[in-house]
This record gives sequence, structure tokens and C-alpha cells, in this order.
Amino acid sequence: MTYDFELKMKVRDYECDLQGIVNNANYQHYTEHCRHEFLLSHDISFSAMHEQGIDAVVARITIDYKVPLRSGDEFAVRLRLERDGIKYVFFQDIYRLADEKLVAKARVDTVCMLNGRLMKSCPELDAKLQDILSR
Amino acid sequence: MTYDFELKMKVRDYECDLQGIVNNANYQHYTEHCRHEFLLSHDISFSAMHEQGIDAVVARITIDYKVPLRSGDEFAVRLRLERDGIKYVFFQDIYRLADEKLVAKARVDTVCMLNGRLMKSCPELDAKLQDILSR
Amino acid sequence: MTYDFELKMKVRDYECDLQGIVNNANYQHYTEHCRHEFLLSHDISFSAMHEQGIDAVVARITIDYKVPLRSGDEFAVRLRLERDGIKYVFFQDIYRLADEKLVAKARVDTVCMLNGRLMKSCPELDAKLQDILSR
Amino acid sequence: MTYDFELKMKVRDYECDLQGIVNNANYQHYTEHCRHEFLLSHDISFSAMHEQGIDAVVARITIDYKVPLRSGDEFAVRLRLERDGIKYVFFQDIYRLADEKLVAKARVDTVCMLNGRLMKSCPELDAKLQDILSR
Repeated sequence: MTYDFELKMKVRDYECDLQGIVNNANYQHYTEHCRHEFLLSHDISFSAMHEQGIDAVVARITIDYKVPLRSGDEFAVRLRLERDGIKYVFFQDIYRLADEKLVAKARVDTVCMLNGRLMKSCPELDAKLQDILSR
Repeated sequence: MTYDFELKMKVRDYECDLQGIVNNANYQHYTEHCRHEFLLSHDISFSAMHEQGIDAVVARITIDYKVPLRSGDEFAVRLRLERDGIKYVFFQDIYRLADEKLVAKARVDTVCMLNGRLMKSCPELDAKLQDILSR
Repeated sequence: MTYDFELKMKVRDYECDLQGIVNNANYQHYTEHCRHEFLLSHDISFSAMHEQGIDAVVARITIDYKVPLRSGDEFAVRLRLERDGIKYVFFQDIYRLADEKLVAKARVDTVCMLNGRLMKSCPELDAKLQDILSR
Repeated sequence: MTYDFELKMKVRDYECDLQGIVNNANYQHYTEHCRHEFLLSHDISFSAMHEQGIDAVVARITIDYKVPLRSGDEFAVRLRLERDGIKYVFFQDIYRLADEKLVAKARVDTVCMLNGRLMKSCPELDAKLQDILSR
């Protein structure tokens, strides 16, 4: 897969649970942070959008867990964005940097809401991500 | 769906993010806590299993987000367990208690590992959850 | 100490870190949730106050950690509120329920802000917590 | 204050709560991650120590909150270590990088435990942090 964005991060020990591996929910945090940084890199602020009444929300998430991350691991979250009807679909794969092993594969279907109502399209995303979405 | 277990909980304000709703990753926490309480109700301790070298791990999770939970909301996580090959599949639905509205639907595929190796079956789960798994 | 409020909770496994004990920061979450439930029990909503531009914020927190909580532990957070100048000071002690052992002692100094400005007093807290604050 | 270590980080949106600012408990996470990175920079692994039965634990934490961090903020956690009797005391200050504003001041008193028993001194820390501790 060709990715549109990459964010490098490092495991923080408090993200590990009593099994000594990163707790499952934290991978979801990693993908969220990566999406928001991707949006920021295209001059789209998640929190500024929220203040204008527009919220990009996750409608569905699927995560396949392959290999767990552990204390000290460095990793990259790589992201590819595609449009599917009213959905903005983020394909996000997490790789452990030491050996490029695939850690987790996520598919995140998001939609935009305007003051709580589903939008067919989000003008700000469409304008600023035009190159990617028209691909 | 007929459920095998229910856990009632209440939103904690720190679980809400800047959109004023419970952050997506916390629903995953809710489902995890519900699974562990379900196991405990059948005398299976997740942390005791870990100390014996057996870890039940999530191989795949899918969550459909329907309606967000907010500050003050009380909710129930309802769980049904089914066996599918080597997988123990948890169907977990979250309902808002005030109006029984469906908040989120999760399917959590778990497998058991013995000292890091995939097990075809987990004897402890099979023994203690026999009634449910042989249904 | 005589307490004004008690909230009973149970450790959730995801709150434990790789040391197998509840991560330190989660005790702060427990005290926050207890404060908000205490306020709600006096008909004060933290999130509703926020929407009116009033934020109760923590100016200083001190936590003494005595005995760690572990997977499966049930505990109570007990709270006493006192006024000290412009500060609303919450004394919050956490006890393990199995043996009433003191787990942690916290002192949380909070102040109220109106649209980002420090308030000398918060009328809503003063009115609804009059019995406690005038003690 | 002269610092022994600095870790630069950026707010992740999921760390913000419904007040739109970083939730108080997350500053504690930031200080923990900074301490562990500091230790790693001196070749001391928190998780490896744990596997040898030695746990550095927090006995007391005090945090003064000055200015809240918000979505998008970059910040540095700066750390100074001092010895005080059996305690290893970490002074940790968080600064917002855009304007070097002091965000929070923390003092974290830690002690070492060997298989659950308080140690008068932790040989590994003493050896590897000799330059700092003998200052």
C-alpha cells in the first residue's frame, strides 16, 4: 500500500498493561493521533473544526492485532485516505521500526457531522485533501 | 441477541474528550473490562492466567459507533460468547440505560497464547465456560 | 477524618501497568471521578458548569501512595471538602475494601475560573454546598 | 533550576477532556514518561528492572498546575534529580514551547522496592546516575 502520511512514535510505559504489552485500546489512540497529525499537516485542525460545529467522527473501526508492542519499542503509524460514499476511510498500519514488523492493521470509517447531523460531504476536508481524495 | 452477561457502568468525565463525548478508545476499555468481569463471574482471572503464562489476547476488534455517550450517562455492556474455530468471539453491545438506545456494537475475536504460542484451545476457558461454549 | 462523600469502585485491568499494579496517574482519575460524583450528588454538574463558562480547575494536587491497588481490588474513595481562602480543598483518601487498608491520600486544591479568569468564589458551589462549607 | 534531562512532546487530542484542555492526570503521565526516558538515556530500563524484581515506585507526587496545555501545543518536560535520604526526588517542570510559559511544576518522590520490600538504596540507579547523585 502507498501511504499518504507517517507518524513515528515510541511506546510510553504507562501504555503497557499487566500483560507487559501495550493495551489494545492504546493502538486506537495511536491511530487517532496519527489522523489528527495528518489533518494538521494539511492545515485542518480537528479542534478548530469542532469549535465551528463540525465533528469528524468514527462510524466504524476494525483493528487486526498482529504483534504486540512492548516497553521501549519505536513504531510508525502509516496512513492512507480514501473516499467511499459519504465516508472518509483511513487505512492505518502500525509497524515496529526495529524490524519493520507489522504490528496492527486498522481501517477507520469516519463521517462528518454538522451540529450533530450527518453531512454528505465535509467541504473543508474536500478542499484541503483534494489531491488525495481525487486520486 | 441473548446475552450471557451484563455490566452496568457510568461515564467518568475524564473519559470524554474535547468533543464533549466519550473518546472512541474508551469504548474498547469498556468492552475489555466487561469481558474480564464476565470471566471473573465464571471464576476465571485474567491476571492469574497471565501469571501462569496463559494470555487471552485480542486478534481482531470491530466496533460500530451508533450514538455517543456523554458526561453523566449510565450504560450497560452486554456480552455474548461464541466459539469459532480456535477463536473465542465476544459480541458486545453497549446500551445507554436512560433510553435503551444502542450506543455501540463490538465484535472481539480473541485467542489464547501459552508463553507466546497460539493455543488451539484454552483448557481453563473450555472447562469453566462449558455451558456457554457447548450451546 | 469525617468524610462528606464516598464512592466505591473496582480496579479495571487496563488501569494496571507493567508492574502489575494500578498506574499512578489512575489514582488521580479516581479522585477526579469521585469529586464529580460528589458534586452531582449535590446537584452540581461539572460539564453543565463548563458550558456556562465556569470551570473548576485543579491548582495543586498532592498524592501520597501507601499501598498499591491490583487487579480485582475493590476500593472506596472518601472525600472531605473544606474552604481555604479562594480555594476549595478536597481531602480524598482511597481505601482497599477487603481490609480497609489506606491506599493513597490526596489533597486537591481547586479554584473556579469564569471564562478563564480566577473567581474569588463560585456562587453555585457556595449555594449548593453551603452546609459543608460553613461547617 | 539546572535540569538533567529534557523530553519534548506534543499534546495528543485524546489527552484533552471536555474542558478542551489536557486532563490533569495526563501531566502525571508526561512526567512518568519523561522519567523513564531519562533513565533509559542512562541505560536504565524501568521494565527490565521490574523483571529483576526491582521496582522504582512513586511514594509522593505534588503537581502545581499553572497554565493548561491545549490541542496542538508542543511542550518540554525538564527534569532534575536529587537524592534525599532513601528517596530519589525528581523535580519536573513542564514548559509550553511556543512561549516558554511554565505549565506545571511537579515534585516526584520515588523509592526502590526489591520484591515488595523498601530498599535503602538502589545499586543500579546509584551506579549509573553517580555523576548526578554525587553532585
